[in-house]
Amino acid sequence: MKTNDRCRVAVVGASGYAGEELVRLLLAHPDAELTAVTSRQNLGKKLSQVFPRFARVATADTISFSDLDSANIARHTDIVFLALPHGVSAEFAKPLLDRGARVIDLSADFRLRSADLYREFYGKVHIAPELLANATYGLPELYRDQIRGASLVACPGCYPTSILIPLLPLTRQKLIEAGSICVTSLSGVTGAGRKVEAGYLFAECNESIRPYGVPKHRHLSEIEQELSLVGGEPIAIQFIPHLVPANRGIITTIYANVRSEGTDRIGSVMENFFRDEPFVRLLTGEQLPDTKNVVGTNFIDIAWRFDPRTKRIILMSAIDNLVKGTSGQAVQCMNLMSSFPETAGLF
Amino acid sequence: MKTNDRCRVAVVGASGYAGEELVRLLLAHPDAELTAVTSRQNLGKKLSQVFPRFARVATADTISFSDLDSANIARHTDIVFLALPHGVSAEFAKPLLDRGARVIDLSADFRLRSADLYREFYGKVHIAPELLANATYGLPELYRDQIRGASLVACPGCYPTSILIPLLPLTRQKLIEAGSICVTSLSGVTGAGRKVEAGYLFAECNESIRPYGVPKHRHLSEIEQELSLVGGEPIAIQFIPHLVPANRGIITTIYANVRSEGTDRIGSVMENFFRDEPFVRLLTGEQLPDTKNVVGTNFIDIAWRFDPRTKRIILMSAIDNLVKGTSGQAVQCMNLMSSFPETAGLF
Amino acid sequence: MKTNDRCRVAVVGASGYAGEELVRLLLAHPDAELTAVTSRQNLGKKLSQVFPRFARVATADTISFSDLDSANIARHTDIVFLALPHGVSAEFAKPLLDRGARVIDLSADFRLRSADLYREFYGKVHIAPELLANATYGLPELYRDQIRGASLVACPGCYPTSILIPLLPLTRQKLIEAGSICVTSLSGVTGAGRKVEAGYLFAECNESIRPYGVPKHRHLSEIEQELSLVGGEPIAIQFIPHLVPANRGIITTIYANVRSEGTDRIGSVMENFFRDEPFVRLLTGEQLPDTKNVVGTNFIDIAWRFDPRTKRIILMSAIDNLVKGTSGQAVQCMNLMSSFPETAGLF
Amino acid sequence: MKTNDRCRVAVVGASGYAGEELVRLLLAHPDAELTAVTSRQNLGKKLSQVFPRFARVATADTISFSDLDSANIARHTDIVFLALPHGVSAEFAKPLLDRGARVIDLSADFRLRSADLYREFYGKVHIAPELLANATYGLPELYRDQIRGASLVACPGCYPTSILIPLLPLTRQKLIEAGSICVTSLSGVTGAGRKVEAGYLFAECNESIRPYGVPKHRHLSEIEQELSLVGGEPIAIQFIPHLVPANRGIITTIYANVRSEGTDRIGSVMENFFRDEPFVRLLTGEQLPDTKNVVGTNFIDIAWRFDPRTKRIILMSAIDNLVKGTSGQAVQCMNLMSSFPETAGLF
Repeated sequence: MKTNDRCRVAVVGASGYAGEELVRLLLAHPDAELTAVTSRQNLGKKLSQVFPRFARVATADTISFSDLDSANIARHTDIVFLALPHGVSAEFAKPLLDRGARVIDLSADFRLRSADLYREFYGKVHIAPELLANATYGLPELYRDQIRGASLVACPGCYPTSILIPLLPLTRQKLIEAGSICVTSLSGVTGAGRKVEAGYLFAECNESIRPYGVPKHRHLSEIEQELSLVGGEPIAIQFIPHLVPANRGIITTIYANVRSEGTDRIGSVMENFFRDEPFVRLLTGEQLPDTKNVVGTNFIDIAWRFDPRTKRIILMSAIDNLVKGTSGQAVQCMNLMSSFPETAGLF
Repeated sequence: MKTNDRCRVAVVGASGYAGEELVRLLLAHPDAELTAVTSRQNLGKKLSQVFPRFARVATADTISFSDLDSANIARHTDIVFLALPHGVSAEFAKPLLDRGARVIDLSADFRLRSADLYREFYGKVHIAPELLANATYGLPELYRDQIRGASLVACPGCYPTSILIPLLPLTRQKLIEAGSICVTSLSGVTGAGRKVEAGYLFAECNESIRPYGVPKHRHLSEIEQELSLVGGEPIAIQFIPHLVPANRGIITTIYANVRSEGTDRIGSVMENFFRDEPFVRLLTGEQLPDTKNVVGTNFIDIAWRFDPRTKRIILMSAIDNLVKGTSGQAVQCMNLMSSFPETAGLF
Repeated sequence: MKTNDRCRVAVVGASGYAGEELVRLLLAHPDAELTAVTSRQNLGKKLSQVFPRFARVATADTISFSDLDSANIARHTDIVFLALPHGVSAEFAKPLLDRGARVIDLSADFRLRSADLYREFYGKVHIAPELLANATYGLPELYRDQIRGASLVACPGCYPTSILIPLLPLTRQKLIEAGSICVTSLSGVTGAGRKVEAGYLFAECNESIRPYGVPKHRHLSEIEQELSLVGGEPIAIQFIPHLVPANRGIITTIYANVRSEGTDRIGSVMENFFRDEPFVRLLTGEQLPDTKNVVGTNFIDIAWRFDPRTKRIILMSAIDNLVKGTSGQAVQCMNLMSSFPETAGLF
Repeated sequence: MKTNDRCRVAVVGASGYAGEELVRLLLAHPDAELTAVTSRQNLGKKLSQVFPRFARVATADTISFSDLDSANIARHTDIVFLALPHGVSAEFAKPLLDRGARVIDLSADFRLRSADLYREFYGKVHIAPELLANATYGLPELYRDQIRGASLVACPGCYPTSILIPLLPLTRQKLIEAGSICVTSLSGVTGAGRKVEAGYLFAECNESIRPYGVPKHRHLSEIEQELSLVGGEPIAIQFIPHLVPANRGIITTIYANVRSEGTDRIGSVMENFFRDEPFVRLLTGEQLPDTKNVVGTNFIDIAWRFDPRTKRIILMSAIDNLVKGTSGQAVQCMNLMSSFPETAGLF
């Protein structure tokens, strides 16, 4: 039993960049209490020992990495965050859910509604397909009400967040041609996670700019799934991500043909859709998105331009891949699930 | 009179990054002799004093910045490089040409065939419109023969180089839909030149990723002009450049719809077009362009993928904006104009 | 009159990096209320317009840059922060102090106790020498009690903060030889402020490592003044700063000869001195300072090693030059002056 | 038998940064012919496949990585470069030397004259101690004549190169106090080699500044050995290296007390010593070393300042750790051993 109104939370797999950022947000959250962190490789070490930046911060000097014991965690926790690799999360989610914990999963395991689609894009059979129907896609700008009551939330990927949010208003209003969407994203290197591979060494990334995942990046699956649902028609897009030498931040630039009747309505549709969104900043005047304005925050900055020469709209967004792109969005979902102010711990 | 077979060259306006890189290439060129460098702000200083990296390199300790004296320069020089701002080059080119010098201009002043287009994109009246008809666009992959005999060469911009070369083969063969081309470019910060403006300070660019020049960047004019000529039909494209925190390098990613009959021919068309190009490397296998493989060289690395889901081709290229994107290409043109091996001084 | 217990604060000169960081901390401070920001160049603009990262954050969308009106500011403000260039602060401080405001100055104008020393190191006559005797050097680790009651606090420079704090314990105990201290500091580029000069352009700093200010950097004056007071004897040091390609952070490495009788006491002296310091983290085990662990925080991380081969101690520290090195320390002083918890708004 | 006067060379272990840079220099060298490259992990692959930047450059498309066959290599090669880890080189050198090849070793295996010192600093028993007496320390500024005739050259480490060269003149003239030397070095990340370890990931090094190897870095052994020989007395120094977020470059800053009688002679001693050195640039006027002026070159830039306040001299140097710090210096040695111009292939 919890003794006060704080939400007791655990982070399973807190050794990557997303897990570390999540811990940072939770340690500073006014209404959450971090009761457990697990990590096989850091077992027994104090949180502040593994992440020296957390020394002297809240409970980081007293809490230690434990082994995952589902029963124990479910008993002492209200919400469990899974910061595990794709394919591993599904395995851990089930026993936690069975024991009554609510789960916010940061992996891709519960983002797709179809186990077939999962197999196509992730190359393996889904191990808990029966849970897919119960999962809620954790994009508050789209599923705010469902998230409040959800027991299993699948946080969107960082690229999908940066692509879906700017596309939601015009797609819902059917103002853009479904087949015309081309998306370029530029990501800082933490987007790849803390993978110890030669390609992510400093001297391989610094002074290097490069595309990758061409032409069928895994994130296409959830982007197209959600866009098609919003637009009420099958939507396939082109999406090419690029790696650039920065720690954090994603810039997404989207090209799409505007339906002839839609040109005049773009501005009002965008403004109406985002008016009450606490974390969407629709830029005005000459401003264009710049990752340095969102890094460390849960904001997504969005700008758009209509090009009369080509009848295309250019949508641009900036997010911090580790905050609005992952851990901040997860905390935003936790806030909704716990009836906290949606912005609690995120400003 | 020159006393040997070396080409005597001068660099007018050698204080920016392009001018500095050009000087670097010319100091090391086996067949060129740098006889003059001019710069108002560095007047009287030795080359190695302004650019300490050149100390002890060739003639950098003996040559000093002089004032521009067209008559004098034309008398002692075979080829004059103009590394001046847009709008300034046109003024300097005329007296040099009148006195018999051959001119390679790195600015945008002679890239467009129409003075009206120049005014539309550059916002001022062209001061030497009569020269436009005589200028050759300095893209060897397109105008090799014309460059050999040219007296006025207009070197392409860095973005246009990275966009035009990969598009040439399919455009000439009319394999892609003219109206479907969307281009994203990512550039290192030297692309902006050595401008002392707040936006280019280290702490404003480092850990910053951002689009700019949306939606009508000046370089669109020369890209569309050349593409339309190659394709034999008017071609308008979408082009959005981005600034990323690297010193050098441009990655360009191009999206275009392939005409239905063209799918099978892409590979052979690309290979045939580039087979004998000394500076184009068509990547094979899994390789994708990475700026770190071309920085410091005059190569353009190109890869392509056809996406059967969308019927689009994705063309990707990498160049060093200061070499193949500017100064190296200028030297390549000089080699052609002087009947040197095309690769002289560029490997 | 203030209507509650919050401290009403103004930031004069909020256009540089230190001013911007100070605004960030004050907007989020639980006990402070930002009532005015001034900047000649941004006059009339909203805070969030000049610094887009602050849009939607607290009062940043409503507060606008005003002109400095000392009478008005003093009337509506409890504490005024001066984030102005050296030489300018002194001029603004006097009328504010005369009208009863308390002033925290981030410049060097009130750090030295002697107007002669000021003239020697800053090259101009001090314009308010009569205030020097009233100023308190704003290093809480040294002058905590005096800061509480001070009306004029002179915040230390970023280098002095990183050098003085690790040296305080051993200097006070006279464990190191006064003439033996050599100091190397490595600073990120924001340390130079938002100066629009060629030397601070991205491409001049990225992939560049360089010493500067050799051998007599201005900050020597305040470092030697404070060390001499603490040690009770004249202490002159060697100090060479270096610029490295990072936005934020200072690493300081100090070499000093240990007096023969002092070797065994180093550990206990260090631990005792820092035991209750809320923002000093004395690293243990194998840990060495790394700026990435302190950036964005008000912590100073300190490690030391005794080298038995040379009888020297190596002291190493890491701070965020814009937080513990400037603005965070200023807020720490404000907390002390206002009887808030010393860590308020700084975790 | 070689068929012309070119030097036939092999690179053993060409998969790290030093090996790759060495290959770059050798491919472009006018008098060298790369006949073999070996690497266990890249066995059978073409050079240009492993290092795409070399595609189309000289023989990089035809030469493939082979296994090390000492007999075969010795037969077809005049000089063999060993770019192997410490401890591995010694094993490979012996059979090559026995078969008559001349060896230039880039590891630390033959830098120390004493097998005991090797064991103390490298933690293992030397496997070919009998070769130590025959090895020549490959610092041309100190051992030019011996290198010409050497059969086994031990290239200095990158830190030692940046520290020894500036200290040679004053040490030889006994102008500085032996026990007073403190050295700080700042290195780009390639200095650590292409090690796939978490600490060298992009996001762990970018925006990170940190000391390491405190207080007894391995390179101390060779620095002190050579300084003591030059100075004719035992010299122990303090040396602390730091890692900064750049790909290449080392800045070294040295503090030392000047003997009272030496002050006036510093300038002439420095100038005389370096006057004829082809790769040492003694900076004049206000200039201080900056790695960006030496990166990609074999130069070492040196400046010095005498501080009358402390009677110390500050010596500062800049090198490219992969060129003058490793591979360029190795080529400089090869040039000497082969009676080529000392600067061949290095400008």
